[in-house]
This record gives sequence, C-alpha cells and structure tokens, in this order.
Amino acid sequence: MIAAIDPFHAIAISREAHALEEQGRSILHMEFGQPSTGAPAEAIAVAHRVLDTEPMGYWESTALKQRIARHYADRHGVAVDAEQVLLTCGASPGLVLALTSLFAPGARVATARPGYVAYRNTLKALYLDPVEIACGPAERFQISADALARIDPAPDGLILASPANPTGTIIPPAELARIAAQCRERGIRIISDEIYHGLSFGEPAHSMLEYAADAVIVNSFSKYYSMAGWRLGWIVVPPQLIETARARMGNLFLTPPVLAQRAGLAAFDCTDELEGHVASYRRNRQLLLDALPALGLARIAPPDGAFYIYADISHLTNDSLGFCQRLLRDTGVATAPGIDFDPVDGHRFIRFSFAVSTDRVEDAIARMVPWFQAQPRR
Amino acid sequence: MIAAIDPFHAIAISREAHALEEQGRSILHMEFGQPSTGAPAEAIAVAHRVLDTEPMGYWESTALKQRIARHYADRHGVAVDAEQVLLTCGASPGLVLALTSLFAPGARVATARPGYVAYRNTLKALYLDPVEIACGPAERFQISADALARIDPAPDGLILASPANPTGTIIPPAELARIAAQCRERGIRIISDEIYHGLSFGEPAHSMLEYAADAVIVNSFSKYYSMAGWRLGWIVVPPQLIETARARMGNLFLTPPVLAQRAGLAAFDCTDELEGHVASYRRNRQLLLDALPALGLARIAPPDGAFYIYADISHLTNDSLGFCQRLLRDTGVATAPGIDFDPVDGHRFIRFSFAVSTDRVEDAIARMVPWFQAQPRR
Repeated sequence: MIAAIDPFHAIAISREAHALEEQGRSILHMEFGQPSTGAPAEAIAVAHRVLDTEPMGYWESTALKQRIARHYADRHGVAVDAEQVLLTCGASPGLVLALTSLFAPGARVATARPGYVAYRNTLKALYLDPVEIACGPAERFQISADALARIDPAPDGLILASPANPTGTIIPPAELARIAAQCRERGIRIISDEIYHGLSFGEPAHSMLEYAADAVIVNSFSKYYSMAGWRLGWIVVPPQLIETARARMGNLFLTPPVLAQRAGLAAFDCTDELEGHVASYRRNRQLLLDALPALGLARIAPPDGAFYIYADISHLTNDSLGFCQRLLRDTGVATAPGIDFDPVDGHRFIRFSFAVSTDRVEDAIARMVPWFQAQPRR
Repeated sequence: MIAAIDPFHAIAISREAHALEEQGRSILHMEFGQPSTGAPAEAIAVAHRVLDTEPMGYWESTALKQRIARHYADRHGVAVDAEQVLLTCGASPGLVLALTSLFAPGARVATARPGYVAYRNTLKALYLDPVEIACGPAERFQISADALARIDPAPDGLILASPANPTGTIIPPAELARIAAQCRERGIRIISDEIYHGLSFGEPAHSMLEYAADAVIVNSFSKYYSMAGWRLGWIVVPPQLIETARARMGNLFLTPPVLAQRAGLAAFDCTDELEGHVASYRRNRQLLLDALPALGLARIAPPDGAFYIYADISHLTNDSLGFCQRLLRDTGVATAPGIDFDPVDGHRFIRFSFAVSTDRVEDAIARMVPWFQAQPRR
C-alpha cells in the first residue's frame, strides 16, 4: 500500500488566486512563503557570465561548500569542514537526503504541530512515523525539552525548525541546549531546519550545531538569499555520516544546478541588498502587528523571525480553508489555511506571509480590515 | 539499519583525473555520460532574458508540460495530457518520484544487469528489493520478455532503459510490445527510463508509452538536449497516478529550477543544433568501432544509441577498476569500470563515453592503441 499524503491546500488557494487574476482581479499573494524579490544583483551578474562561458555539466562547487562551511565559523563559531556540506536542489530534497541518511522505514520522528506540511508528508512518503508534538500558545508553538521528554519511548529522530513555519517563533538558545542534551542522552537524532535563518526581528537565531555537533542541518538559498526558483540548498552532516549521505546524494539526486551554485556563492557577499529585504520584512511585520486590533485578531504566535503571522481565527470560523477561500474571493488577498500546518487544530488558524513588498501589505490590510470587521462572530 | 549503498567508482576515477589535470597532465574525460557541449544557443538566450526580467519564485511551467505532452504525440503517436507530465530536477529525482509513487518498501523491482548504478542504489535506499536480470551478449545486454517470464513470482515492478546505460543497446519495438503484454498480464508496473531518447544510430527508439499506456516514463534534458547542469527532467504518469505523484513532488522536491524550465522549452525548437551533436556522436562512435581491432577489443555490446561503448576486457584483466586506474595514470584517458554497472560480471568490462568532441576521441584512440597493445594477455 502506497502511503497516503495530505494535499497542500495553499496550492489550491493559489491556483484559484491565479485564476481570478487571469479574470482581471487584483490579487495580493500572501499564501506562500517566498520572497517577491529576485536574487541579488551580483548573483544575477555572475549567472549571465556563466551562461556565456561554461557548458555546465554535472558539477558540485567546492568553493561554495567551503564558503558555507566558513559561514558556520563566522556566524555561529562552529567548525564545519567543507566535506560535511552537501549541496542539494533546495531544502525539500535536502530533507529527503537527511531523512534517508539517518532513518530506515518504521523509525519514529518527532515534529512540532503546527509545522511545515512537508515534514509530515515527507516522513509518510518515506514510511517513517511522524510523532507530532502539539505546541500551543503556552509553548510559543515550539518544541521544548520538556515536551520532548514526555515522549516515551524516545523517538528515533526529531525535526526542529527555528524560526518556524507557520509561526515564525524561535527556540531560545538555552532551550536548544536543553533539547540537545536530552537528544544526546536518549539517542535521538536531530534534523534542524534552519531555512529561515537570517530572518530574525530580535536576537539572531542560533544554529543547532552550536549545541549538538552531530545534528544534521538543512538550509537553502530560497528565503534569506531570495533565490527560491534557483533551487539550491544544503545540508551539513557530522563527519561519520558524510559517506552515507554522499552515496544517497549521488544516486537519488546527482548534483544541484550549476548556475544556482555559481550565483549562490556570489549571494553570500550581497549582504547590503539582502539586509534591505530583511528591513522590508521588518516593516511589513510591524504594519501587520499594528493592524491586528482593527482585524480583531488578538491571539497570534510571536513572529520572532521568518515572514509569517499565524493567527487564531476561532472567534470567526472553525473552517480555515473555507475562510481563506471567502477572504480571497471577497478581497483578493490570498492566504494559507491553518489546516496545512496542523491537521488537528489548524481549522481555527490562518497564516499570512509578509514576504511581499510593503505597499502590498498596506493594500492587503486596507482590504482586510473592513472584511474582517464585517465577519460575524461565532 | 540504514541501507548499504555501493560507491560509484567512476567518481573516484574522475576525482583522480581532475587531480592529475591540476598537476598539468592532459586528461581526456570519457568516464561520465555527459555532453561536453552546452545548452542550445537559443536556450541560453532565453535564460539571459529571464535573468533580467523575472524574480523567479517557486514555479512550474504549464507551457513546458504542454510542449512535452505534444512531443509524445509528434514523435510517438501517443496522446499524453499535460497534466500527466511532472517536471523534476533531473531524471534522478524523477526516478525517486516514480518509485515512491508506485511502490512501498519491500516491493520487488526488476532491472537489467548490467545497468545504471543508480537503479540498484536508489531501490536499496528506498528499501525496495532489486531483482537483477543477468543480461549478456546473447540477450544484447537487455531485458527480454522471456527473461522476465522466468522471474517467479512476478516482480512488482520493472525498470527498463532503452537505449541503455552502460551498453547503448535498444530494445526492438516487437520486444517492447511483448514485455508490455506480459507486464499487463502479471500486474508488473513499468518504469521506462528514456533519458537517451534522441540518441540513436539506427532506428529511433520507441517509447514504452506506445505499448503500455500505464507505464511511468522518466526523461530529462541532460543528454539529447545537452543541459545536464541545468537539472531538469520529467516523468509521465498515467492519469490515475497524477494525484499520488503530485503530492510526492510537492513535498519531496517542490519545483524544478525556473531558468531551466524556460530554457528547456526553447531547447525543444533547437533541432538543428541538437542534431549536430548527434552527428558528432555518430562520428565518434564510428571512430571507436573502427579502432576496436587495434585495441584488441572484439566483444562489445552493440551501441544502438546513447554515447557509450561497453567492452569485454576479460582477456586483459579481471579487475576493471584497477585497469581503468592504470589506463588513466598511463595515458590520461578516464573511463568507467564495469563494476559500476554490474557487481557480478562488471570486473571484466570497461565503459567508454564518447559524448566528447571528435578530436578528443581521436586523441584518446591514439593514446590507447599502443597502451592496449602493450597490455599482457591473461
């Protein structure tokens, strides 16, 4: 029997949004977590040069692996050898690479609920058992060492995400250290999804590598580096896992795109441009936070990072998908329903992505305020 | 227990070849199956335009799916709906997508031996059981309906490759029809790897879709279209598998690179340039075939297509890896050892890839003839 996998409802919302757009409607796309900006200018310039000069065969950039390794020393004070870095076609296959390198079918892997839909689905597609840890407002929607300790017997693995999708919450360093200690003690392998690193609005996020040298790190150029459609990501594995992971990379995926690797290396030095995007997300976040009272939304996850606001709409609906559909049809604002991230409680949540330009966030707020105010309370 | 996976020895050969190159040695790279040419000029021109105009987010090209669907009507007289086409980051993840959409762990999947190393390894990594069918010179190194019939109980699946790697042999249309009939009768799901389509030196290869409408087809832009480093491929699934495959695509891989999709669409219309490459492979193939007597190589697989010659070297060695290493160190010609493709009999085979420029093939022959002649017979 082939594993059953849930559909991603935000895709259906997006499809309808595009259909409405083709009919001439003005649509504000806040349904997906992708920057509306392109790659940094210097990355694009490099890509132009490569197009004109290289035949581009199967290839892995040693320079990029070295640059990524250096990033962990510079940013996190952690020594990573370039050999520990594997380049992937984005974080999604990076997660597949991490999971197939660590676990065999039947392994139990803990994740936060709410969480990124692909964790649960990818685990199921690989015949691993998701062990979902319910994380509510009291836990800032994040996994804690205490919650992990209550899982008995110990899971084989744990997927962490900080900043998280859909909430943007960050696990504080002391808690990361406690989680790491427990995982060491109970033999739980850690996969830390750090795809939203660089996008923090308070303290910068810490890497799990600072606390667990044997954690597998997943990251990508799709968020902070604004290169989603280039399909480039990486994983960092501990030395003893290099051979296992490389064998899977070579057979299951081969190599990532050459252009993305060349451009991605350049993107590492485009700090001014990229920090400009972060400043714009910071403005967007503040605009949305300021608009919450007018929207009648009081219960949100603290958006420490990433570019999401995850809001409780239980006073308005217990059908988040229907709610998002009505919001789209009435106002042209596309959002993601909570059920994508939480099959149990997500029916009363909505996720706004503010990875769009500030004028669009302003437009979205102007459209949403009267609409939300006109919604009957349940 | 994590599945054990064999290393790909040609990678070790290639690594040594590059190390020798850095020491100033002249190296002729015939170890990998990748065109030395770049993408067609018009595909590159399109990529330049896209770089300057699109932010490139997560995106799937409907136009490209439609163009691929039309290709099956034009070339094979088979009706394929664009919805049946899924775009992937190359044929490797395409195979993962096909396998995870069709089979659960423990399923038995038949493959030809010799065959592309990643079939066996990817099956193992996904906890599927490879059932290898030994194919020797009598079977033109290809799976036949008769050989398949001898597998009892029937396997759950079958991976076909025609033209094949490492041999270049093509399964004749009548045999494809017989295999399809048997698979229908015995409930065997077919995956047909058609990545070397377009590269035939006699009759063009037929698609398995002509004989089995429910076959899953794997193909890519890496070989005929000369775009290996762009990482773009596709699979075709029967209508009843679309939803299953899409759910896996979205979660395990997300989307393929935008630039590759835009450029790939253009590549479909670059026939003159691409047929020029085929003409060059045809010349290279003939040069190597003409040189076989001087090399003392008499027993080869008939290279109907692709860009390989798979030759029996059992009169010279029973250690193909050591042989390829000596050949590289002595002459600078990098090749792939048969053990990559056949763990049982591959120790007495070598694979030459002639996807290089004709002057390099001439140079390689000039270097290899005296070296082969100086090798002691066993």
